[in-house]
Amino acid sequence: MTEQIGELNPPNRLMLTPGPSSMDPRVYRALATPLVGHVDPWFRGCMDDVQVLLRQIFQTENRITMPLSASGSGGIEAAVVNSLEEGDEAIIAVNGVFSDRMAVIGGHTAAKITKVEAPYGKPVDAEDVRRAGKGRKIKMIGFAQGETSSGVLTDVDSFRAVADELGALLVVDTVASLAAVPLHIDRQRMDICFSGTQKAISAPPGMSPITVSPRAEEAFRTRKTKVQSWYFDLTTAMNYWGKDRLYHHTPPVSLIFALREAMRIVIEEGLEARWERHRVNALALVAGLEAMGLEMLVKRPADRLPTVTAVMIPQGVDDVKVRNQLLDEFNIEIAGGLGPLKAKIWRVGLMGHCSQKPYVLLFLAALEKVLLDQGVRVPSGAGVGAAVRSYTNVDTAAAVSR
Amino acid sequence: MTEQIGELNPPNRLMLTPGPSSMDPRVYRALATPLVGHVDPWFRGCMDDVQVLLRQIFQTENRITMPLSASGSGGIEAAVVNSLEEGDEAIIAVNGVFSDRMAVIGGHTAAKITKVEAPYGKPVDAEDVRRAGKGRKIKMIGFAQGETSSGVLTDVDSFRAVADELGALLVVDTVASLAAVPLHIDRQRMDICFSGTQKAISAPPGMSPITVSPRAEEAFRTRKTKVQSWYFDLTTAMNYWGKDRLYHHTPPVSLIFALREAMRIVIEEGLEARWERHRVNALALVAGLEAMGLEMLVKRPADRLPTVTAVMIPQGVDDVKVRNQLLDEFNIEIAGGLGPLKAKIWRVGLMGHCSQKPYVLLFLAALEKVLLDQGVRVPSGAGVGAAVRSYTNVDTAAAVSR
Repeated sequence: MTEQIGELNPPNRLMLTPGPSSMDPRVYRALATPLVGHVDPWFRGCMDDVQVLLRQIFQTENRITMPLSASGSGGIEAAVVNSLEEGDEAIIAVNGVFSDRMAVIGGHTAAKITKVEAPYGKPVDAEDVRRAGKGRKIKMIGFAQGETSSGVLTDVDSFRAVADELGALLVVDTVASLAAVPLHIDRQRMDICFSGTQKAISAPPGMSPITVSPRAEEAFRTRKTKVQSWYFDLTTAMNYWGKDRLYHHTPPVSLIFALREAMRIVIEEGLEARWERHRVNALALVAGLEAMGLEMLVKRPADRLPTVTAVMIPQGVDDVKVRNQLLDEFNIEIAGGLGPLKAKIWRVGLMGHCSQKPYVLLFLAALEKVLLDQGVRVPSGAGVGAAVRSYTNVDTAAAVSR
Repeated sequence: MTEQIGELNPPNRLMLTPGPSSMDPRVYRALATPLVGHVDPWFRGCMDDVQVLLRQIFQTENRITMPLSASGSGGIEAAVVNSLEEGDEAIIAVNGVFSDRMAVIGGHTAAKITKVEAPYGKPVDAEDVRRAGKGRKIKMIGFAQGETSSGVLTDVDSFRAVADELGALLVVDTVASLAAVPLHIDRQRMDICFSGTQKAISAPPGMSPITVSPRAEEAFRTRKTKVQSWYFDLTTAMNYWGKDRLYHHTPPVSLIFALREAMRIVIEEGLEARWERHRVNALALVAGLEAMGLEMLVKRPADRLPTVTAVMIPQGVDDVKVRNQLLDEFNIEIAGGLGPLKAKIWRVGLMGHCSQKPYVLLFLAALEKVLLDQGVRVPSGAGVGAAVRSYTNVDTAAAVSR
């Protein structure tokens, strides 16, 4: 009981992980701003600001738009348990750990869940979902626009078309894609969309932005039973974030300050510019990795999520040794694989603040050193060289199109 | 869609509320420490530290001891949904909004919930719980040691005795009491105990420390059905906080840094010294308020929670006007009443970092000014004078006992 715990003194990492991402110094400053109370009249205005910014980033006018006081997985739970109750059926498109999590959480409800699967590394074909739902009453279709565990991007519109045919609510996981990949909630008519703060928004982890269409809100109103979670009941949680500001629970004020600042940075850059930055840096990273002789898990370039690049670990190379050397020698963190992809892939995150040319070039150079030390034959300078040429090609194309 | 959101520029408040409390500058510094990843090997050690400190503060050796990634209300939900399933019966002792919330959340489960109530301002008599449970199979008894909404302290031991008789798990809400009021999880044999970080620990809001006895853990293992919440399933959440560090969800790293620092401060002060500090400052506050002619909601001094003092609003005085003037003229936030106590009481919080002599004296002086302006006849300087004398009496008693 008398163990002494020393000063907080973490290493200074560059986080090229699929979240959390390293943050802009302005966000740290906002995070450390002296607290105010969650019912302080000033804070009500701050909440308005957060909602204005969230609606801009989600590109929506949805009334229910707020950051949940939970991680992205809390966002999954909120989306699922508000949509489903006994007697309902849902189809979840599963192509990774996080889309599977949506099905797992569905399994905690009394609804009937059907999984439509694709191999990790590919998007689920919307056609397969259509077939699975044919002739059945489907309440909800869920999928991940960006599957963090495998780095796969899934096209929203084809799923919307199927959901329209089946009369289902469309629930979209954008934890790894929001503010990095084109997304228009209202125009693409998504019904519930949730995300995380620690990915391409580059705020600290701990909140899950969520937005709910009027149609989904109406579906909540006509439920026969209570939402099985009090904490994640979006209707009552919104009473606090809505115009009445009715107390529900104490939100993480400091995280809200930081989220507000991180979103200001997103809007200052502009969504289009931010999407393009993520695209260009991911292209350069992949060009570099391929030039080093590494293979991507996701074969079709169009299926690659720009925020998470999944690289196959070469035969005979020790997953953990490589990642530990990157940490110890370069203070760079990348992630390993999850579930069936454990020890099979590395996941390199280029999210928000971390999607930067200097980090891409540094990472490729550091990886070359580490792979060489681990006995992998890597052509000298090939990774950095290919990334540089990728950037130059993009610049040239842009100059021509001007 | 083009509304400009300006710089973050909150007022600098002294938060004499029932949470969040103002924080030590060291905690802000920890909060703004550059992030590391949640699976970084260094962070695993940081998690160990947090658990060592939590066990010291809870005074327990319980394996399941961790901060949940949610507010204190999330802690209520976790305690309730892990304990209860269809076919179970629970008794909740309700004497305020937060103990009632435990019953409300119970109402989202398939278990049968019986409320045993006391008027807000009094503890529930454990004898009434015994009577209600007599001859029935009760799975869980829940109550709040500190009821934040009314400032009532409830004796743990009498509830433990009843739970023993009925063979029930004892679930204790210590959101407003942990680190401020004597509490020994193991010695007092509480089964599940949850708290909040933003109260007497004076870390930022956003996490709910929780601890689970081996007996309750065994009860979780023998459940017939899944826990209805995936996010709040304590068994799988503990797989991340346990020795395997299996990924569950991304925790709020920055909040964990801040919590670690805030708990170091708690341990540096010492639990006994901290309890005594809360006691002495609450005594002085009450002495001051009574000398100003104000009445306490909680009549019996032994029932008063030292962290939250509930003061009756004098006849004809406008609740909101007084609180707004305190904010505008003195930058001091206190809280109003909740639910049936709305506009009937003020709640003055002296929690953690805020339980300090200078704040007590400043508050009493500011309140005198505001009440006078609002037309209340207040004896000149009586509040401050009585508080000063209360402190002197404590010092004299301590000197005599030495």
